[in-house]
Amino acid sequence: MTETIQTAVVGVTGYAGAELARLLLRHPRLQGVPPVFAGRVDAKDLARGGVPLAEIHPQLAGGNGSGNLKLEPFSWELLAGRGVEVLFLATPHEQSRQWVPEALARGLRVIDLSGAWRLTEAANRAVYAFADEGSEQAAAIQAQAVYGLPELHRAQIAGARLVANPGCYATSIILGLKPLVAAGLVDLDHGIVADAKSGMSGAGKAPTARTHFMYAADNLSAYNVFTHRHTGELLEQIGVEQSQIVFTPHLLPIPRGILSTIYVWFHDPQTAATVSRVYREFFRSSPMIRLHDKTLPQIQYSLRTNYADIGFQLSADGRRAVVVSCLDNLLKGASSQAVENLNIMLGWGEAEGLE
Amino acid sequence: MTETIQTAVVGVTGYAGAELARLLLRHPRLQGVPPVFAGRVDAKDLARGGVPLAEIHPQLAGGNGSGNLKLEPFSWELLAGRGVEVLFLATPHEQSRQWVPEALARGLRVIDLSGAWRLTEAANRAVYAFADEGSEQAAAIQAQAVYGLPELHRAQIAGARLVANPGCYATSIILGLKPLVAAGLVDLDHGIVADAKSGMSGAGKAPTARTHFMYAADNLSAYNVFTHRHTGELLEQIGVEQSQIVFTPHLLPIPRGILSTIYVWFHDPQTAATVSRVYREFFRSSPMIRLHDKTLPQIQYSLRTNYADIGFQLSADGRRAVVVSCLDNLLKGASSQAVENLNIMLGWGEAEGLE
Amino acid sequence: MTETIQTAVVGVTGYAGAELARLLLRHPRLQGVPPVFAGRVDAKDLARGGVPLAEIHPQLAGGNGSGNLKLEPFSWELLAGRGVEVLFLATPHEQSRQWVPEALARGLRVIDLSGAWRLTEAANRAVYAFADEGSEQAAAIQAQAVYGLPELHRAQIAGARLVANPGCYATSIILGLKPLVAAGLVDLDHGIVADAKSGMSGAGKAPTARTHFMYAADNLSAYNVFTHRHTGELLEQIGVEQSQIVFTPHLLPIPRGILSTIYVWFHDPQTAATVSRVYREFFRSSPMIRLHDKTLPQIQYSLRTNYADIGFQLSADGRRAVVVSCLDNLLKGASSQAVENLNIMLGWGEAEGLE
Amino acid sequence: MTETIQTAVVGVTGYAGAELARLLLRHPRLQGVPPVFAGRVDAKDLARGGVPLAEIHPQLAGGNGSGNLKLEPFSWELLAGRGVEVLFLATPHEQSRQWVPEALARGLRVIDLSGAWRLTEAANRAVYAFADEGSEQAAAIQAQAVYGLPELHRAQIAGARLVANPGCYATSIILGLKPLVAAGLVDLDHGIVADAKSGMSGAGKAPTARTHFMYAADNLSAYNVFTHRHTGELLEQIGVEQSQIVFTPHLLPIPRGILSTIYVWFHDPQTAATVSRVYREFFRSSPMIRLHDKTLPQIQYSLRTNYADIGFQLSADGRRAVVVSCLDNLLKGASSQAVENLNIMLGWGEAEGLE
Repeated sequence: MTETIQTAVVGVTGYAGAELARLLLRHPRLQGVPPVFAGRVDAKDLARGGVPLAEIHPQLAGGNGSGNLKLEPFSWELLAGRGVEVLFLATPHEQSRQWVPEALARGLRVIDLSGAWRLTEAANRAVYAFADEGSEQAAAIQAQAVYGLPELHRAQIAGARLVANPGCYATSIILGLKPLVAAGLVDLDHGIVADAKSGMSGAGKAPTARTHFMYAADNLSAYNVFTHRHTGELLEQIGVEQSQIVFTPHLLPIPRGILSTIYVWFHDPQTAATVSRVYREFFRSSPMIRLHDKTLPQIQYSLRTNYADIGFQLSADGRRAVVVSCLDNLLKGASSQAVENLNIMLGWGEAEGLE
Repeated sequence: MTETIQTAVVGVTGYAGAELARLLLRHPRLQGVPPVFAGRVDAKDLARGGVPLAEIHPQLAGGNGSGNLKLEPFSWELLAGRGVEVLFLATPHEQSRQWVPEALARGLRVIDLSGAWRLTEAANRAVYAFADEGSEQAAAIQAQAVYGLPELHRAQIAGARLVANPGCYATSIILGLKPLVAAGLVDLDHGIVADAKSGMSGAGKAPTARTHFMYAADNLSAYNVFTHRHTGELLEQIGVEQSQIVFTPHLLPIPRGILSTIYVWFHDPQTAATVSRVYREFFRSSPMIRLHDKTLPQIQYSLRTNYADIGFQLSADGRRAVVVSCLDNLLKGASSQAVENLNIMLGWGEAEGLE
Repeated sequence: MTETIQTAVVGVTGYAGAELARLLLRHPRLQGVPPVFAGRVDAKDLARGGVPLAEIHPQLAGGNGSGNLKLEPFSWELLAGRGVEVLFLATPHEQSRQWVPEALARGLRVIDLSGAWRLTEAANRAVYAFADEGSEQAAAIQAQAVYGLPELHRAQIAGARLVANPGCYATSIILGLKPLVAAGLVDLDHGIVADAKSGMSGAGKAPTARTHFMYAADNLSAYNVFTHRHTGELLEQIGVEQSQIVFTPHLLPIPRGILSTIYVWFHDPQTAATVSRVYREFFRSSPMIRLHDKTLPQIQYSLRTNYADIGFQLSADGRRAVVVSCLDNLLKGASSQAVENLNIMLGWGEAEGLE
Repeated sequence: MTETIQTAVVGVTGYAGAELARLLLRHPRLQGVPPVFAGRVDAKDLARGGVPLAEIHPQLAGGNGSGNLKLEPFSWELLAGRGVEVLFLATPHEQSRQWVPEALARGLRVIDLSGAWRLTEAANRAVYAFADEGSEQAAAIQAQAVYGLPELHRAQIAGARLVANPGCYATSIILGLKPLVAAGLVDLDHGIVADAKSGMSGAGKAPTARTHFMYAADNLSAYNVFTHRHTGELLEQIGVEQSQIVFTPHLLPIPRGILSTIYVWFHDPQTAATVSRVYREFFRSSPMIRLHDKTLPQIQYSLRTNYADIGFQLSADGRRAVVVSCLDNLLKGASSQAVENLNIMLGWGEAEGLE
């Protein structure tokens, strides 16, 4: 087992990147080995060796006198010079498509938080329109990528060189649905509805008409109906056809958190005890899942935690279930899940630094 | 056609009551004939003839020097003495059950905003557990009550003595679904999902753990899954069986507004043009409906308006639709709908005072 | 007295412009004479004669079938052709500086909502750095501009060709302070503090880092300390020196509303009765002011109303007062005040269309 | 130096108590020695030995299978039996007045988060109207109480048996003001204004009209003007007279965070460099203070951190300053400050478990 390791993060200026920085800086295995933070640095900041992290994210600043971490200008030489072994990419997907080949060639292990390498089927990737789609190199890399949802692919993650960290909506819905589908309870042809609601950080940091406070506050809106990019992850990971599931994302007027309300019809009537047992067995080795028997989880349950919270309610006839699955989109939906993957890749406890 | 009329409102201290007061006070047909506001008045306020409305709702206060309306102590004699002809009840449902018999006996026409008289089927009323359930008097009154959704029952409302103003969730979902179901497009046995989200005013004015700012803010929660009281209105008004629809209400961290996301499967593939035509025909005489072909409505579209906004999106194969129906729960979901009903009952233009 | 009049609005796409449109469309004197809405129109929209207002502001859309108002491509000929007599400019201040000379030359009366013509003293205008600062034409126009705060300049507004509609913060603070200063109660040398807090619509519609939901939500920030542009309005209208007042604006995480907390020291101890009388006398002919003796107003009091709400509290020794002044920054702080000015200019009732 | 210690918390069901529990549970010195959580327990929960913490605060629940901490029925015997040495009281002030004598008599060291023991002067305590005011026992206890603001009283806290943890507003204002006053820069007779704004958690967990979401959202209100309980702490700790300071608290529509905007007049003109140096020297050994030279702090800077963030801006003439002081009212304004006090009392690093 590795004692510790040098990590690097590209994309620390975004919301998920900031949370990833926070988690890595306090990870017990990484004490004394802070990540290298690398990215684009303006000419004027080059002179002072980069931008102090505390200027980018004031919340991350240390107390009076402490703290001196910087965002440094990215180069492969920087990473090599610092002995980086694991690279986190919290970058746009096109950038991840371009950088991952080089990173792997240089022997780095990569945890990519973007959508670049999550999808096995070309049809599901079509919505991304990757510039290198169809290339042999991309195909070869995709073939070795592991979908980084520990609850489903723990064993493969352990040995992976490239982990594709799941989408936030996808994580929420797959965790709520997979146990029931895997147990054969769900009548797929009856159709599954996944009505998901996400806080605004999911819309990214770029100022747009849609992220303007006046648009987002006191509002709720559905978007990308039938066309959201995370749909492919649902199809591939849950094992359903396009015609068997409808997924509708909505934008909530809160900073963060996702709640997915999932509707399924069963082949046969079920009892709450049976359904509860199915979940408990599926997640019996999963430390980042919290199951709720008595109440349905709410967004506040999982907010600023690294857990996914899952609960359900059956109709009186036991033929239908409403499943509620909550998580923090920047944590279990992004950066704490990336740390889980790091833990698994390095043989550490899956929940280390996350409880 | 009546020139004007004396109205009265009981329950003006609540959220819907306040909006009703505002709408009636500026209604062009009621200029110079402000409603009588009646309710419980403390002993100490009796001396000054009631409580100034401006103390209860500072937003309703007139400017410097103007305005002198009061909440007066309720009695049947007060209403009779003032010549009240139409009584609005914005009261808890148990109070409406008790008062409506007396009001009708005294020759008043009643628009009841509570859930007391909306449901024809005893099975659907069971969830209310009315104290007088099963009595002959209640049955006789229920038999003459008209469900006050103008888009469905305009003609009956015109002649009604008792209008049961619909529930806010129910209005939102029925308006989105009824046109498609009535046109025979929807495969009911495939199951309908109505995932509805409401602002906090829907939870009422009483301070509770659930209406505390700290509980509600930065949160989203599903509640009353499979058991919400408005379910019966859906069954009766849309004409579906309990097993054919799942309705899940959620509490949004905003003051007001409802957005319902409704999922249907069609018998046969449909085009957007067909579905759009179905809606336009169904609502061709309905001035308070706004249909959206190009975009899906959002809560802000209908917020603080008296309209319901409806839009939809079809799956690529035309077999499934996601319908989005928005309204302001205190207006089209309560008080402006009550004014619509008043307009219809008195032979005035349905949208008078509402545009 | 003019029966009615043709108005025009430039800048209807912004927040204040939208509210102005709403107010003018329902103004009783302007029924049947909707404003001409003029502005920049894309090439593709020229073909259809402009952009339907309902596409820009879905809330303003009429019901099923109704409504056909458009944003038309601006030209002086358009205004002349329609017989426009009063022009509202809800435009950036540089644009107002450029357009007002032409508008006045063409005989239009102008109500300008920007900061272009509010300030008499060149020193106070310095912060704007107007391109035409120092020109004779600008000086001549400034000389005839009237500061459009009805509570202070009612008589001059009546005859004005150019009304400079006050800033939102300035309106709030001047209304709270002027009565006390004019009555000679305030010890100016002791220093006045005006700590003002505004909702996000005050920051404008352009998407910026500062208007991003993630920046604004769950936050409060002071900005432009000692340097905010509205300071000059305070100095000129209240009649104090720069050294005698500190004004600090803050950004609140709500869409709209301003609350100013104002701190003054009196020359001599005062009683609440005296201070109350001072306010009542100052505002005795001001229909858009609501004075509060028993409670301090809150933002919700004035939200979405056309009023300013003012209250105060004295220290036990009667030597200090905390004044609280609230208004809706888009209404009494902008567009409803513009309508008040229109009313006064045309000899109509000051509060017509505003109560 | 003590290796570790057994702590107990009474009042864990409140907001500050929950944060205190979280901080103590992850404190590096307390690993393996979780606090005893004691309080009122319902009869039906007695059977199962208390209420699982995860039911009270779902966010605090551990993952799948982990976690078993309970709220146990309070008794002095429980504390004695577990060997508790330090007792945290996150209780109402009347309860703290009653319990502290017993706790001290039993040899416990106490950190009291309420307002029970913060004030030395009887006149300043009058607003609390303590039941035991004037008793000899209370006077004796008050005499040994230390005001737990580490930045001012580090040395006395180290040896204290009873630490009175400061009020949230008081902490924010004292930290912003004390360095300037202590350095003799401030003209006290000119008057200091402290305009403070707090998130809703400051209003407590009891559901009231004022904590209702509909009252608090989209609002801002000033309250307890000239009469807030924390005023006495300002007078005693800063060393000013009642007539020299005005403190106005406001309720912000956000869950947590305090921003205080503080206005001072200097005896003589100052430069930013001088003022900055005064702050740096005052706080040179204070790890939980973050000083800002380039920008003013905002509430988000300190939100969910254990720091106070302080910045300032001078007027052009250097005679006036606006100081902005931010903190999280539940952390540096309550529970993380309590942990700082624990650290100091036990000779641990002041920031241990807090960075």
